[in-house]
Amino acid sequence: MRRFIQSRWTRIGLMVATLGVAFFGIPALVHAADPNGADTIAANPNAGLNMAWTLIAGFLVFFMQLGFAFLGAGLIRSKNTMNYMTKSFLDFCIASLGFWAFGFALMFGGSKLWPGLEDGNTVIGFSGFFLTGENYDVSTIMGWFFQMVFAATAATIVAGAVAERMKITAYLAYSFIIGALIYPIYGHWMWGGGWLGTLHIGGAIGARDFAGSGVVHTVGGLAALVGAWMVGPRIGKFNSDGTPNLIKGHNLPYVAIGTFILFFGWFGFNPGSTLAATDLRISVIAVNTFLAGATGAVVAMYWKFARTGKADLVLACNGALAGLVAITAPCAFVAPWAAVVIGAVAAPVMIGTAYLVERVLKVDDVVGAVPVHAGAGIWGLLAVGIFADGTYLDVSGLVDGSANQLVLQIIDVLVVIAWTVATAAITFYAIKKTIGLRASKEEELAGLDVPEHGTEAYPADVPVRVAAATGAAD
Amino acid sequence: MRRFIQSRWTRIGLMVATLGVAFFGIPALVHAADPNGADTIAANPNAGLNMAWTLIAGFLVFFMQLGFAFLGAGLIRSKNTMNYMTKSFLDFCIASLGFWAFGFALMFGGSKLWPGLEDGNTVIGFSGFFLTGENYDVSTIMGWFFQMVFAATAATIVAGAVAERMKITAYLAYSFIIGALIYPIYGHWMWGGGWLGTLHIGGAIGARDFAGSGVVHTVGGLAALVGAWMVGPRIGKFNSDGTPNLIKGHNLPYVAIGTFILFFGWFGFNPGSTLAATDLRISVIAVNTFLAGATGAVVAMYWKFARTGKADLVLACNGALAGLVAITAPCAFVAPWAAVVIGAVAAPVMIGTAYLVERVLKVDDVVGAVPVHAGAGIWGLLAVGIFADGTYLDVSGLVDGSANQLVLQIIDVLVVIAWTVATAAITFYAIKKTIGLRASKEEELAGLDVPEHGTEAYPADVPVRVAAATGAAD
Amino acid sequence: MRRFIQSRWTRIGLMVATLGVAFFGIPALVHAADPNGADTIAANPNAGLNMAWTLIAGFLVFFMQLGFAFLGAGLIRSKNTMNYMTKSFLDFCIASLGFWAFGFALMFGGSKLWPGLEDGNTVIGFSGFFLTGENYDVSTIMGWFFQMVFAATAATIVAGAVAERMKITAYLAYSFIIGALIYPIYGHWMWGGGWLGTLHIGGAIGARDFAGSGVVHTVGGLAALVGAWMVGPRIGKFNSDGTPNLIKGHNLPYVAIGTFILFFGWFGFNPGSTLAATDLRISVIAVNTFLAGATGAVVAMYWKFARTGKADLVLACNGALAGLVAITAPCAFVAPWAAVVIGAVAAPVMIGTAYLVERVLKVDDVVGAVPVHAGAGIWGLLAVGIFADGTYLDVSGLVDGSANQLVLQIIDVLVVIAWTVATAAITFYAIKKTIGLRASKEEELAGLDVPEHGTEAYPADVPVRVAAATGAAD
Repeated sequence: MRRFIQSRWTRIGLMVATLGVAFFGIPALVHAADPNGADTIAANPNAGLNMAWTLIAGFLVFFMQLGFAFLGAGLIRSKNTMNYMTKSFLDFCIASLGFWAFGFALMFGGSKLWPGLEDGNTVIGFSGFFLTGENYDVSTIMGWFFQMVFAATAATIVAGAVAERMKITAYLAYSFIIGALIYPIYGHWMWGGGWLGTLHIGGAIGARDFAGSGVVHTVGGLAALVGAWMVGPRIGKFNSDGTPNLIKGHNLPYVAIGTFILFFGWFGFNPGSTLAATDLRISVIAVNTFLAGATGAVVAMYWKFARTGKADLVLACNGALAGLVAITAPCAFVAPWAAVVIGAVAAPVMIGTAYLVERVLKVDDVVGAVPVHAGAGIWGLLAVGIFADGTYLDVSGLVDGSANQLVLQIIDVLVVIAWTVATAAITFYAIKKTIGLRASKEEELAGLDVPEHGTEAYPADVPVRVAAATGAAD
Repeated sequence: MRRFIQSRWTRIGLMVATLGVAFFGIPALVHAADPNGADTIAANPNAGLNMAWTLIAGFLVFFMQLGFAFLGAGLIRSKNTMNYMTKSFLDFCIASLGFWAFGFALMFGGSKLWPGLEDGNTVIGFSGFFLTGENYDVSTIMGWFFQMVFAATAATIVAGAVAERMKITAYLAYSFIIGALIYPIYGHWMWGGGWLGTLHIGGAIGARDFAGSGVVHTVGGLAALVGAWMVGPRIGKFNSDGTPNLIKGHNLPYVAIGTFILFFGWFGFNPGSTLAATDLRISVIAVNTFLAGATGAVVAMYWKFARTGKADLVLACNGALAGLVAITAPCAFVAPWAAVVIGAVAAPVMIGTAYLVERVLKVDDVVGAVPVHAGAGIWGLLAVGIFADGTYLDVSGLVDGSANQLVLQIIDVLVVIAWTVATAAITFYAIKKTIGLRASKEEELAGLDVPEHGTEAYPADVPVRVAAATGAAD
Repeated sequence: MRRFIQSRWTRIGLMVATLGVAFFGIPALVHAADPNGADTIAANPNAGLNMAWTLIAGFLVFFMQLGFAFLGAGLIRSKNTMNYMTKSFLDFCIASLGFWAFGFALMFGGSKLWPGLEDGNTVIGFSGFFLTGENYDVSTIMGWFFQMVFAATAATIVAGAVAERMKITAYLAYSFIIGALIYPIYGHWMWGGGWLGTLHIGGAIGARDFAGSGVVHTVGGLAALVGAWMVGPRIGKFNSDGTPNLIKGHNLPYVAIGTFILFFGWFGFNPGSTLAATDLRISVIAVNTFLAGATGAVVAMYWKFARTGKADLVLACNGALAGLVAITAPCAFVAPWAAVVIGAVAAPVMIGTAYLVERVLKVDDVVGAVPVHAGAGIWGLLAVGIFADGTYLDVSGLVDGSANQLVLQIIDVLVVIAWTVATAAITFYAIKKTIGLRASKEEELAGLDVPEHGTEAYPADVPVRVAAATGAAD
């Protein structure tokens, strides 16, 4: 009975999709804007180039899922690896179906960015469900693809923070909600024609988040914070006096491998957000992205080296990721020297946030998702208001003599925190009271792989597992 | 002596290539169509964009080789990992050289798709050998590249099915044959101007296989079936009463990693098959590809979860791959809602085919290559005839009120089965009688790595291997 | 105190960067050529396509870093894996910051290739520091990105050769120097308007190295030779009579994985070096790259198989890489048949160089970086003079009836050897006398991971490590 409830809840996404096909899908055959693109390219000869650019960038963003998979898998113990990989693989599938069914419509309805997105207001959109009718258009579908991989990124950030104790069913239910509701509604405010992206202060128009330090990373990072807090720390993470223990992962080279892949994918994430290769600012965006990531890694590594004499690879990787997260909002608005500064600051911001999360809030964030994505993400939002130099889209920060943009960015930070913490708390609370968030103590101690997935991650290496079973390990 | 025969046989590809250089290569300096592309781009200003698109898509398809490598490596035991990786790495090298020497000419000769492909009929082509003479042209060479990575994909599908017992020499001989003969001749019928792609029934013109559910995946999957059947099951796979045992792989997270990479590469496979970014249908193709893969994963995972309460990662991955294989033929012809349906159906088709292969045919397909590539591939071919909505290239299926296309697709299914099973059977039989297909019983029990490759896969981790050698493992 | 010196030295890059921001960065706000690209694309409608092509190719080259990471990690023992991965990850960060601060200006100053690069002579450049002022231009920044990933590739080649005994601090200091000085100055001679690329002999103008067999690979490979020689062989590598022992790596499948990734990235490396997709020669370049790599793998594999009856995966991978390195210089100038020959010759050149390095020079090159990158790289430089067929950029070799180009290529080979050996020797000698090159004997025996990085690579798999510590292993 309990199993039935669990599975029912998590099947909601699937049922909704099925119903959607029945009710919304068939009309797609009747109404369509430009499903083969002949009219679109006749009207705009650059449409092919810009579509190719946007799609390829989207492919790279998709590939970041593998980076997250490696990163998290490296930082957990082998007994929970199947569980983590299943979450990592299924969350983008489920979140994307949620985004297909609802999210895209809530986020871009009313934006009129592409055909079939006419209906919506500054708070929420309500056109674009299931990519049907007028949405069956090459431009709208291109837009959906690029936005979907962003939504899937926000979803998967959480997996690492709640690893090693959250039930698979609970996690997949959350994945659907963030893709269908949490991410899109805030996203609408910023990118979908909503109030936050159009707010005027002085001459500055709209809070700016070019590629999603806020929309993707801070949302994901704060959802991770709430999730990790509500599910509670792993057994053994904190001592009775509240001091934390380091629980080492089982494959630390995977952390560097995952970071390489994420870094690679970020070249789709940021430069692709122009949605146009005819916008030559893409080279500046790519270089800013690179410099911030490289600087974040170097600063984090040497910070630790100066203190301990050890070159900490995992911290260097998180430093790179913090730099990349931080540059995501300002990447298009700043000069290369500013990217170096933003990356350099991101590293200590990440380190400080990690201290705050673990030592002050006593939250067990297994992979450092909160400091990397929320800590550096908030810094990135503020950096727009500081370093935007006025050379692109008329966005000017303190270095260009204007404080208005910084005020807008501060408002954005407050909004993203309030929205995400509130909705993530409601979501995880609701899941806790229905499905239950956490595996049993026995399952956690044994590892989630066998009870939830029916197999160990490395089953043929029996001698290792036998040895592990003696209790000397993990 | 036996070793000499073995190596001689497999060196055929190399000798042919060498001879080819001597006889065909030198004339390349004399005749050439447009080897630097100056005339081509003067005639068509979009040639640069479309070439960039096609090449980048081809790079992604090439990268799928790594996905197949991870996927198979994860599902085998560590004692056969060097053998599998060698097959996985060398098969694309050898198949591609076979495609360079012979395959491309047999497949596209007479198609007149690019310069130097004038000679051929509807059954077989005979111009384009070794990319010499008029083939030394930027467009022809671009076409060769994209088609070659497809041929290499078909070849590598087989590696997983015959893993852990087929000899390396036998497998590499087969790789050359599929790249040089089996794949190209059927491919000619469908894509090279041959009879199958031009057959008329009512108003429908030609069986349609946009990116190769049939040409690549069904051919590869059925060759895998024949190969796995002829080499026989692994020792211990079937009990004396015919019931199968589950032989677990040594690194199941690799299955998810491989699937992520394959999914990524599929964005080259399907959208790239337009060979043009000026054809804006590429966005619809990308989204259909994504939706079918995501839906396949979700359906397969929940199907198993509903029955056992376990979230089976390997099955979810195979579900994603089945969705991707199935959408490959219809990806350009259907609407997003239909992609969801095609992916949803692909999962049970894959599961049913797996049952058929293992329980009825008693064939030991180590990685599930047959259900994923042949089962879902055939479903994909049929899906064109059902869901094609008439918005692209005038291809109309049942949902658009026409049954003619479905009839053509059924003919195609029968043809691909007959051709592949027959030629693969002849090929593997010939290899069996000359080189021999199967490693000795002693080699199989010890693992193929040391006898065939001279080293274990993880040699420095001696304690693990020592423990394994005690017999408690694998 | 010693630690302070060590860390101080390696922090030079960071301090320089900080100073650079203070002195050079701020003016970027004042002077700029075309920071948002509006003028550039108005002047050249193809600028968007060519920028997209160049950036995407650069992303692929960046991704090669992951290939090097896997390759090296597979060939070392697990006790040094954190050390290797840290080097692999940080070297591109540090080398690229060195290239940002100094290298780009030394290399391209005076080339006038892009805005802000006016000052320089044929020996050295001196404009373009920190991407400031007139360099804040979309074209210049695009150029920087593509060149930077090449510099980072040269840097990381060394990591594998000196693995398992060079100190992390020493290695990172070297990384900064190669990115800031060694690579760029020779690069200026060849690609930055310097004397080597403009030297006239008969009708031939300039030594030619299309994508860097010399500039990137031979420089990296020879720096690796010098580094490996100066740091000395690993304990146990050579017996007292000078004969070498094979020290096996801990994860040989990683070698194939790394090779797949490098192969994939090479499609950015070579075809991207046109910096333009409107140059349709890109298809020929891609195919030549592929054919040389595939042929190198097949020849190396069968060479070993003919001698030992074993299919050696690691050698096949190095054969593929040798083919890829060799084709890098001539890729644009030769026909496909010549690419097959170049790849086929590259394999024995690599094997012969490996023999020379290990048996004659008695240098311990852990991953074979010297034979693959320097051996095959030199062969590639010479191959331009032999096989260039005159169809592209008027470069003609022996097959087109001219010997002048070959003379230029021989000069280039002598220059690159003299320059790299001399500067690398000075660099490593200076590091040896200040920081010290080599870890202590105790650290080397225990593995560098714990003493230098504070953790093992696979810490949660305690039973394996415990067993390893008994001394039966590694």
